[in-house]
Amino acid sequence: MTESSQKELLNEFKSVFYPESIAVVGASQNMLKPGSFWLKTIIDAGFRGSIYPVNRRGGEFMGFKIYPSLTAIPGTVDYVIVAIPRNAVPDLLDDCAAKKVKVVHFFTAGFSEIGDATGDRLEEELIRKARQGGFRIIGPNTIGTYCPESNVPYGPGGKIGELGSVGFISQSGGIGDKLVELGAARGINYSKGVSFGNGVDLDSIDFLKYMAADPKTSVIGAYLEGTRNGHRLFNAMKEAAKVKPLIVWKAGRTEVGAAAAKSHTGSLASSAAIWSAALKQAGVIEVYNLEELADTLLIFQQLGQWQGGGIAIIGGLADGGGGISVSASDTCAGLGLDIPPLRTKTRQKLTSLLGQVGSILRNPVDVSQGGINPVIIQEATELVLADSSIDLLLVQEDTGILLKYVPWKLAQAINAVFVDVRAKQDKPIVIVSPPGGTETERLELEQKLSQASIPVFPTMERAAKAIRNLSQYSRFQATMRG
Amino acid sequence: MTESSQKELLNEFKSVFYPESIAVVGASQNMLKPGSFWLKTIIDAGFRGSIYPVNRRGGEFMGFKIYPSLTAIPGTVDYVIVAIPRNAVPDLLDDCAAKKVKVVHFFTAGFSEIGDATGDRLEEELIRKARQGGFRIIGPNTIGTYCPESNVPYGPGGKIGELGSVGFISQSGGIGDKLVELGAARGINYSKGVSFGNGVDLDSIDFLKYMAADPKTSVIGAYLEGTRNGHRLFNAMKEAAKVKPLIVWKAGRTEVGAAAAKSHTGSLASSAAIWSAALKQAGVIEVYNLEELADTLLIFQQLGQWQGGGIAIIGGLADGGGGISVSASDTCAGLGLDIPPLRTKTRQKLTSLLGQVGSILRNPVDVSQGGINPVIIQEATELVLADSSIDLLLVQEDTGILLKYVPWKLAQAINAVFVDVRAKQDKPIVIVSPPGGTETERLELEQKLSQASIPVFPTMERAAKAIRNLSQYSRFQATMRG
Repeated sequence: MTESSQKELLNEFKSVFYPESIAVVGASQNMLKPGSFWLKTIIDAGFRGSIYPVNRRGGEFMGFKIYPSLTAIPGTVDYVIVAIPRNAVPDLLDDCAAKKVKVVHFFTAGFSEIGDATGDRLEEELIRKARQGGFRIIGPNTIGTYCPESNVPYGPGGKIGELGSVGFISQSGGIGDKLVELGAARGINYSKGVSFGNGVDLDSIDFLKYMAADPKTSVIGAYLEGTRNGHRLFNAMKEAAKVKPLIVWKAGRTEVGAAAAKSHTGSLASSAAIWSAALKQAGVIEVYNLEELADTLLIFQQLGQWQGGGIAIIGGLADGGGGISVSASDTCAGLGLDIPPLRTKTRQKLTSLLGQVGSILRNPVDVSQGGINPVIIQEATELVLADSSIDLLLVQEDTGILLKYVPWKLAQAINAVFVDVRAKQDKPIVIVSPPGGTETERLELEQKLSQASIPVFPTMERAAKAIRNLSQYSRFQATMRG
Repeated sequence: MTESSQKELLNEFKSVFYPESIAVVGASQNMLKPGSFWLKTIIDAGFRGSIYPVNRRGGEFMGFKIYPSLTAIPGTVDYVIVAIPRNAVPDLLDDCAAKKVKVVHFFTAGFSEIGDATGDRLEEELIRKARQGGFRIIGPNTIGTYCPESNVPYGPGGKIGELGSVGFISQSGGIGDKLVELGAARGINYSKGVSFGNGVDLDSIDFLKYMAADPKTSVIGAYLEGTRNGHRLFNAMKEAAKVKPLIVWKAGRTEVGAAAAKSHTGSLASSAAIWSAALKQAGVIEVYNLEELADTLLIFQQLGQWQGGGIAIIGGLADGGGGISVSASDTCAGLGLDIPPLRTKTRQKLTSLLGQVGSILRNPVDVSQGGINPVIIQEATELVLADSSIDLLLVQEDTGILLKYVPWKLAQAINAVFVDVRAKQDKPIVIVSPPGGTETERLELEQKLSQASIPVFPTMERAAKAIRNLSQYSRFQATMRG
């Protein structure tokens, strides 16, 4: 993409993610209506542009005048959120054209995804009137945009999370919701996100092009159910993957899933194998569920690029590092990761530090014989990271077991070791912190690690998969570049 | 097994799980020593038998007299926990023989798992002296037994969980620890558990036979790294799987994992494919990681038997049921589960209840158009469960999204619907409740469901796998019976 066409694209999408004014059609004094709740959410989120509630009954909303129609609004309107029954949509479209709005986003459902004649007819009308009126459409049947930078929340009840550089594109509003929620819980910070539902106008292809061009977005995650134009989508993915990591979860892979996708967003089925082949060819990282999508976004955000190499595993921070050493080896080696034996010199030094009896020191390293001592854990960690066969450290931190043996202060001190070591040298550290024990404390430790650019995963399998996805992409990029 | 040999076996293991007296060798006034912490844990757990601290320095421990040696104890000693350096072990073994103790459990490590001559020699001496002295050995290099019924905690810091009917056998002390921890968090309640480390005397074979015979245990989970006698272990597994579900996680499947297993418990490698084939032939359910082991134990505990059939999926309790419908279909169908379309009559009734617009009603069913109303959710749930093609209901409950839209009271009311419906009819209900949102509230809801025999899983994939494992075993059993 040339610099000027990139500028043009960013400019075109300005009203989508950075609107100067938002109108919510269907907001009323009845707070149980989705439009009302949505508008309240936008106000609470601190959106700084103009805000216009629209309802033909008029009245007032949290101090804002409710306008009887779009055309009755005095100022310009960039972005319209529509939460009214589908039968009222055609009239509204005429108002949108008259008011010269830029983007109309339909939360309203009941179009082609239903499979009835009325829905199909309404959707055709929607497309036609948008083209004639010169405005763009998001949806119908979706939650729409999220942009922490401009304080635009993701749908009713959405909160503004920390600003980051991860962009998401989702055909499903709900999956977008889960991504925002997981982001807040695990420190995945978004630049912006969007769900586009039926995608009758702006769809995966448009948003992919935008996210690829957007300088605020450094990694893109996408949930897709299908497309009307496979060839164009494939090209857009290929172009996006050239400039930043693109992670795609394609659902509707099975017959039952495809049938559900048909009634969800009107997407047509196509072979899962064809999709996988196309994604691979485009340099896209394919993932297979929500957890893997979130895990992969997290590791790209935290580690940027990592071309692979030797991985050291440390376990047994309190006790019980044996079984973890065996099973972690299986998980990582089973996914094709390299767990090389440590060099003889490193092992000798670890033996003098931890003692031979009861210790596993080949790699994995079981530090439990060190006696739950932060100083010894730090020394062991530094020895392992100094080994020239090692390029990444993977630590299993069983908070439940740790807090069974030691007070909270000591658990914090052990945790601080990894934060400290991470800051002192360049090799990445990844932590596995399984839930199911003392949750509140575990979440506090996870947050600290996350802030130190140490990605945290709930299982060894998920950490190993994320590391594999990261290294595969980074290698692919390196190959492309030379 | 004949009734009399079963009685004999249960009697033989009485001192293992129901000792009348416990001596802890290596307990001292220094609370940082593992023996001391362990003894404190036993006292805190409310063990009602006699308790004897042993340390040649003498003194007192939490009001208990410390004896200078085992032989100095006046009463009989059933069970000895050993937490002293390996070099002091031979002398202790003579005392055990002289005192005529029944079971000696070595937390002490540094035997054959080390691979040095001293360790090998000490282990041989240990086996020889135990045979001569007529006592049994657990370990060395392990945490040992757990028995809520007799208030025997699982190692230092262990708490007594709720009494249940799940038994576990683990070659790794740490994996046992994780199972106990996950049990407390997720409502997996144990009858008893044991880790046996190097297993020089009592090992997987003995414990399998016991758990199979134990009337208090209805399902067995095992973590294994290897065995000295594959043929005998295979027979023991086959016999156990005949009388109750046996779920086995065999680690050390990869070369790196097998190397770690060698230095962990001295286990020798053998082909993963051979193991899998043997497990299958024995009617054992094979699982591949800790999460799948815990998930499968949970579903067997909660649902007993379930031979398979049609599964209905309900999503969108608050909003966003579309993407979940598609992806849940993929996950379940991908694992071979049957998600049949609902009968026309059921779909018609659901249409009048939820409305056609924006609803997915084929199966999966997206109830989000019902407006977050417990009455409507209950009606939809009952309609789906009344459908003759449906034999199990799988519900995705996204607590994070739910609490974004509704107050806590309403979330509780929606949750109560499933508890109520479960009690009213026989078809099992399984809930998927993903973490990553408002954790405290989610855990409270999970607990309530769990108490109503509704197993709760963190991801659709894990729920689907557990259901598949349950139905495969139940079908296998039915075939065996005729």
